[in-house]
Amino acid sequence: MRQTFEESTDPSFGSKHLPRVRDAMARQGLDGFLVPHEDEHQNEYLPKANDRLGWLTGFTGSAGAAVVLKDKAAVFVDGRYTLQVRDQVDQALFEIRDLVEGGVPAFIEEATGPGKVIGYDPRLHSPDALGWIRISADKAGAVLKPVSNNPVDVAWGEERPAQPKAQVVPHPSRYTGEESASKREKVGESLAQNGADAAVITAPASIAWLFNVRGGDVIRTPLPLGQTILNKDGTAQLFLDPDKVSDELKAWLGNAVRLENPDAMPAALEALKGKRVMLDPAQSSAWYFDALDKAGAVVVRAQDPCTLPRACKNKVEIQGSRDAHARDGAALARFLHWAATDAQKSLPDEIEVVKTLERFREATGALKDLSFDTIAGAESNGAIVHYRPTERLNKRTKSGSLLLVDSGAQYLDGTTDVTRTIAMGEPSAEMRERFTLVLKGHIALARVRFPAGTTGSALDALGRMALWERGLDYDHGTGHGVGSYLGVHEGPQRIAKAPNSVALRPGMIVSNEPGFYKTGEYGIRVENLQVVTEPADIPGGERPMLGFETLTLAPIDRNLIEVSLLTAEERAWLNAYHSRVLKVVGPQVEPEVRAWLEQATAAI
Amino acid sequence: MRQTFEESTDPSFGSKHLPRVRDAMARQGLDGFLVPHEDEHQNEYLPKANDRLGWLTGFTGSAGAAVVLKDKAAVFVDGRYTLQVRDQVDQALFEIRDLVEGGVPAFIEEATGPGKVIGYDPRLHSPDALGWIRISADKAGAVLKPVSNNPVDVAWGEERPAQPKAQVVPHPSRYTGEESASKREKVGESLAQNGADAAVITAPASIAWLFNVRGGDVIRTPLPLGQTILNKDGTAQLFLDPDKVSDELKAWLGNAVRLENPDAMPAALEALKGKRVMLDPAQSSAWYFDALDKAGAVVVRAQDPCTLPRACKNKVEIQGSRDAHARDGAALARFLHWAATDAQKSLPDEIEVVKTLERFREATGALKDLSFDTIAGAESNGAIVHYRPTERLNKRTKSGSLLLVDSGAQYLDGTTDVTRTIAMGEPSAEMRERFTLVLKGHIALARVRFPAGTTGSALDALGRMALWERGLDYDHGTGHGVGSYLGVHEGPQRIAKAPNSVALRPGMIVSNEPGFYKTGEYGIRVENLQVVTEPADIPGGERPMLGFETLTLAPIDRNLIEVSLLTAEERAWLNAYHSRVLKVVGPQVEPEVRAWLEQATAAI
Repeated sequence: MRQTFEESTDPSFGSKHLPRVRDAMARQGLDGFLVPHEDEHQNEYLPKANDRLGWLTGFTGSAGAAVVLKDKAAVFVDGRYTLQVRDQVDQALFEIRDLVEGGVPAFIEEATGPGKVIGYDPRLHSPDALGWIRISADKAGAVLKPVSNNPVDVAWGEERPAQPKAQVVPHPSRYTGEESASKREKVGESLAQNGADAAVITAPASIAWLFNVRGGDVIRTPLPLGQTILNKDGTAQLFLDPDKVSDELKAWLGNAVRLENPDAMPAALEALKGKRVMLDPAQSSAWYFDALDKAGAVVVRAQDPCTLPRACKNKVEIQGSRDAHARDGAALARFLHWAATDAQKSLPDEIEVVKTLERFREATGALKDLSFDTIAGAESNGAIVHYRPTERLNKRTKSGSLLLVDSGAQYLDGTTDVTRTIAMGEPSAEMRERFTLVLKGHIALARVRFPAGTTGSALDALGRMALWERGLDYDHGTGHGVGSYLGVHEGPQRIAKAPNSVALRPGMIVSNEPGFYKTGEYGIRVENLQVVTEPADIPGGERPMLGFETLTLAPIDRNLIEVSLLTAEERAWLNAYHSRVLKVVGPQVEPEVRAWLEQATAAI
Repeated sequence: MRQTFEESTDPSFGSKHLPRVRDAMARQGLDGFLVPHEDEHQNEYLPKANDRLGWLTGFTGSAGAAVVLKDKAAVFVDGRYTLQVRDQVDQALFEIRDLVEGGVPAFIEEATGPGKVIGYDPRLHSPDALGWIRISADKAGAVLKPVSNNPVDVAWGEERPAQPKAQVVPHPSRYTGEESASKREKVGESLAQNGADAAVITAPASIAWLFNVRGGDVIRTPLPLGQTILNKDGTAQLFLDPDKVSDELKAWLGNAVRLENPDAMPAALEALKGKRVMLDPAQSSAWYFDALDKAGAVVVRAQDPCTLPRACKNKVEIQGSRDAHARDGAALARFLHWAATDAQKSLPDEIEVVKTLERFREATGALKDLSFDTIAGAESNGAIVHYRPTERLNKRTKSGSLLLVDSGAQYLDGTTDVTRTIAMGEPSAEMRERFTLVLKGHIALARVRFPAGTTGSALDALGRMALWERGLDYDHGTGHGVGSYLGVHEGPQRIAKAPNSVALRPGMIVSNEPGFYKTGEYGIRVENLQVVTEPADIPGGERPMLGFETLTLAPIDRNLIEVSLLTAEERAWLNAYHSRVLKVVGPQVEPEVRAWLEQATAAI
């Protein structure tokens, strides 16, 4: 099994580790220290060795922060994690605060004072994030001080796991569709157009994309942890731990890419003296900005130049995603068949559900990893949006309730992410009504056509309208970008309430995942991935319109649909979708599964 | 007649006035000069004396700019005015450029050079607008120089009309619903909460709202041109030309408001030394920022503190708007009856259409002004979004075509703005299809319920979805804010594609006006005003939802509706709306009009 069900931290972490961090702070004369969730790579996903926040506090969510002062400490989490944090963190030691409302800056303003020295590790904070904290420290009269010897690392000492050293491997053109040399040339030209001589790129996903390589340093995402300096002529220095580099990789990278030891980075930045160097203040840490300033380079603040081309998948990547989803669809069909038959009798627990789905995916023979830990939420656990089943929380499915399963896979040709909600036994009328409202939102966002320039935030309301009309909503975004055998969460596009100025462009893959959650009772979500299609003429129309092609292929539970709530167009969409599922997935599965699939995808 | 049909400028303005401006520039040693559309009050609406752009170039649109250099000049307009500007401006003298794409900054970067001195009148530019120009001037090596003696004013000389001196009059509580003292106290408290001692407020609409006064300095909007310094204790200095002030007004303003001559403003700003003073960088000109800096005040940059409370109408203002719309509805019913009967035979020209509508509004006895010049666009003129009929452009309506009429009124109790599209003779199947798509968008935006925090940009797509699905769209916003016997365009809320972070709040009035324009053939728009309703529970729902109450009461042309394209819910909305129109307007009109109205509002 790839997925495990134990808990990696416990609430005693605070009482064991906090005093050690305070000792290390005291030895450096610090009154306080900032501990962000992010690591040196500004990544959502961390190797164990870099989960400083988890080690210090016990909190394992995908976003958060802590501030340690001499006599108090606080943990900051967003709305998704308000329940989880109380379960994982010792509240006698850490005050729980909102990461978004007020956040770290408000705490700094409130809990520090004139002359207090608050340390931070400049490798762990982007200038964007640090800016707000600095304003608050100024107001309080406190001083923010960069430290090179992180007190958490000092306190962690020998117990800290080693940095991962997974081999970095070539990712062939049959998956990427474009040679690295061609990508480097184009991105290099874009640097020149923006008046930059070079770019320092520190996002591991950009390294993976630009050099057509993948790594294994982080679980669930094949990221190579490293950095690059890309010159406008397309040549580059690539900083990777030599232990992760094979001769095959060297040959793959070619002569235009000079491999460097990460230790050589400071000297390489100094060598940029007098150059105009692009650097992303949202992605790269303050350390790089300071180092380039000190080196006498002119920093051009701009979005990582790989972000947009990486998001817009080319034809080969899109075809790869279709292939990955067809393969994943067969595993899903076997799983949903099991859920609709055996599981209805045995009423398995969540862990069994997770293991069964993983076995079907493993059986494809192509599974490289899960794209995230499967969420199987039975009954009330389905209403916890960021739930992950563990031995302790594990719940048995129950007849007359719902099972929410959100899962995904990493294949060499594509990354998947799909949520299906499954009726166990007979669903209530309320469950069917609310499932159908969620489905209406999903269909609106699958069918919509839109002109060039339309952003994800302009479309978000389509996913919610039917729920709003009945006084309902959900407290998460409607869609996130997805990488190509890369991160299952990838920017810059997003479908969400928050204003966002990134237009949806052809080739961008986004999830479409409206939901509804009744706390203490059940959760509903319908999620497919879909790719933005090229602008196309519409008969009788005047302007070409973009749209979406749905990638995910898995039946949507017809037992949960209140057909009278669907319009003719919505029914037509669902029937066409289901007939595609049958056509692509049917030939891949056993007769018994296929017979079930025919029923499950029959027109309504 | 209030509306006139001559043209106030002509393309010869450029050849007559440009050399005089260049002379005045030369005498001040300027290589260039910036001429924005905005005047000292940063207003969309200008008194004749302040329409410097119109006088210099001939261009009379509601937004734009010019830059005059020694040997070349350019006029900048947005997409709405690309046709109009070519009609009004001598292109041998002025290059026509896009106001948004590149705009003034790109021209400055391109057409000036090292050492060039570009003058600007600091009273006419907000720091926000100036900031971008300054960056470009820096890149070009040119210098931006504030001048106190505007070369356009010097050149205009004695031909320049006098500044308007319309009396400022009280606007009683039966319309405003809240005493000025109470408004000043609340806004004063909000200043204190934001750490400010006082605010300098320069937007005439804010002056009107805060002191419950109205003026007549500007056509179509009862704005009093003036400024105020509001203290956090609610006391204020109000700067108004003494000629505009009566004893009645003095008594109305009371003792807590000190009337000052506008000449006293510089001294009053100097007196703010050491104070924290709020000033809006989007609304107030650079001159105020410079003066406060020089005075040694600390400028707190924030939105004009009247903007949000002014936008959220209170119960009395909402009831006033309902009353105004009921009255306006009777005038509209008489007009639409005429359009559906006599006009179908006589096929009047646009000017007659405008005059007829104005006569019906005048006959209410309550009309204070139009809220803007009526747009009556016959045939292809309907496709020109910012069209205004003139003797020269005037077109006769034609059978088998469409007539678009966008108009509004200023009444003491409210401001109206309504567009109806009228079939002259038998409309084509295409016209009916497209009208119905526009109507579907309008209905979606009238029916939608939404949670607190939802912005206008999140809802914009609802107005467009049905058009997008058929490859169509329109190139303007879907809705603008509307004042209460104030501006027909009022922020901060907006329903538009552009990202906007202002949530819609109860009491905000917005227009709902999707459209479709077939260049050279016809224009379609359906516009009602609607007010955001308080959050209310929905049976069976969990969260209270805001929504809209439609204010405008006028039949929508049933001859233009292709009923088969409407859903049951859309039909129900239309029928309910029409039955409200009949119920409110029917009792006000003559039997003949009422009989027609019964047909025009019959269920479909």
